Amino acid sequence: MSDSTTIDVPESSAATKGKAPLMGAPRHERGGFKKGIAIFDFVLRIGAIVCVLAAAASMGTSDETLPFFTQFFQFQASYDDLPTFQYFVVAMALVGGYLVFSLPFSVVTIIRPHAVGPRFLLLIMDTVALTFNTAAAAAAAAIVYLAHNGNPNTNWLAICNQFGDFCQKVSGAVVASFVAVLLFVVLVVLSGLVLRKH
Amino acid sequence: MSDSTTIDVPESSAATKGKAPLMGAPRHERGGFKKGIAIFDFVLRIGAIVCVLAAAASMGTSDETLPFFTQFFQFQASYDDLPTFQYFVVAMALVGGYLVFSLPFSVVTIIRPHAVGPRFLLLIMDTVALTFNTAAAAAAAAIVYLAHNGNPNTNWLAICNQFGDFCQKVSGAVVASFVAVLLFVVLVVLSGLVLRKH
Repeated sequence: MSDSTTIDVPESSAATKGKAPLMGAPRHERGGFKKGIAIFDFVLRIGAIVCVLAAAASMGTSDETLPFFTQFFQFQASYDDLPTFQYFVVAMALVGGYLVFSLPFSVVTIIRPHAVGPRFLLLIMDTVALTFNTAAAAAAAAIVYLAHNGNPNTNWLAICNQFGDFCQKVSGAVVASFVAVLLFVVLVVLSGLVLRKH
Repeated sequence: MSDSTTIDVPESSAATKGKAPLMGAPRHERGGFKKGIAIFDFVLRIGAIVCVLAAAASMGTSDETLPFFTQFFQFQASYDDLPTFQYFVVAMALVGGYLVFSLPFSVVTIIRPHAVGPRFLLLIMDTVALTFNTAAAAAAAAIVYLAHNGNPNTNWLAICNQFGDFCQKVSGAVVASFVAVLLFVVLVVLSGLVLRKH
């Protein structure tokens, strides 16, 4: 089992088996280019994991209790109070989990730059993850904007005057998730670039 | 020019030029498959245009004036009242414009199924459009959820009790834009599929 990957097949045997010489010169020339992109892909994934986990952690730990309270009520803000922020944490956790899960596939594309299957799988999964990540980031951004500015037309008052620390943490989480969105767009385009050069 | 695609290069000459016979039989066999995907791509784009324009129109015409008013105030709701909805209309208009602009490129991929350049361009642009479309749809969905349910923790009251028609139109716009998001995901995956078979 340990030797199975080191078997070296002579080049002539490929021809006798009736296969087109796809592994010939043109592919070797492009191997370096593809390998470089694959390594860049891996680095981008690490960066996206950091962004997504930072966003989830920042949002998940964002609660603030004001230092005064009445007999019946204590003023407190937490991400639990807003369903959009709950969805944000769940989506970030899912996207982060997917990214960790995708690292082995990225390693496979580094080792075998010409493998089309893993690359295509990554393209599909990255596109879906991009959609979830963007949706979570944009929805949270809409709520954060509302928390900062309020809306006089609907009588929704800004809460960031009272809960400054809460808003700061939440805003940081939104920014981190938008950075992850940018990285995902680059990842999808890179996958297309590699498939194009196939 | 009309005969340029029918030139049949003998297989032996490919070997002497040191090129792998990538232009041989496999390409002709795949031509129909690629053409079919290109036509499907075109149809999906038409569907996405319909969805996006319906979303923009529904949101843009959503205003409701209640049939009673006080001396100083008339109760009215419009998409203008919420910055998120304004962004939604602008983003939908931009995405719709891009989709119309992308139709000629889609036609080129139908006529020349093996052309890689237009296909790769469509992949990049579709990914960016997907991101904008998802962001607009998710942000509007977060606000619509708030308008329907309100949030007791932040004292944001639901406004859909008063402005029922407004909420219905806005919700329809959000649903239409999410359908467009789904179509965009399929478009990106199809582009990857065609590039993979290149």
